[in-house]
Amino acid sequence: MITLVIYDITDDGIRNKVAKTCKIFGLCRIQKSAFLGDLTSARRKDLILRLRRILGDSRGRIHVFVLCKADYALREEIGDVEFFRDEEIVLV
Amino acid sequence: MITLVIYDITDDGIRNKVAKTCKIFGLCRIQKSAFLGDLTSARRKDLILRLRRILGDSRGRIHVFVLCKADYALREEIGDVEFFRDEEIVLV
Repeated sequence: MITLVIYDITDDGIRNKVAKTCKIFGLCRIQKSAFLGDLTSARRKDLILRLRRILGDSRGRIHVFVLCKADYALREEIGDVEFFRDEEIVLV
Repeated sequence: MITLVIYDITDDGIRNKVAKTCKIFGLCRIQKSAFLGDLTSARRKDLILRLRRILGDSRGRIHVFVLCKADYALREEIGDVEFFRDEEIVLV
């Protein structure tokens, strides 16, 4: 399922750990604090568990959204396409 | 339809205009650079048009996602619930 992770975290170290974890899970950076990619339900739950552990009691918020293909097809991207598009997003 | 707007914009003035426009359209701030709310398809298209005009050729990216209720129900919120939750999100 297409998974979108967005976050707003005050602490630089924790924010970097969240980004690194999203990358390890194969998600692609689409904005400075937003990652997108295709994960199984089990992998998504594992990612959520890890993100929860990383954030702990630190100040900030992480949202994890699931997008079905019909919803994903309706997305709109405004602005510089190459801005933070560091990899191609592959959907299975 | 539930609409999620996330953005990453370098220019403070433009970023503030994007946030203000999202608020005018009735979306609620869920993170510093993320707004969520319920919009009709016509209102969403109008919002996208306005955001496109505001960003223009400036450096940055805006993503507008649509979430069906089934997808929205699967969302996970990690961290401080009150962090940027300035209003209650009402879904019709």
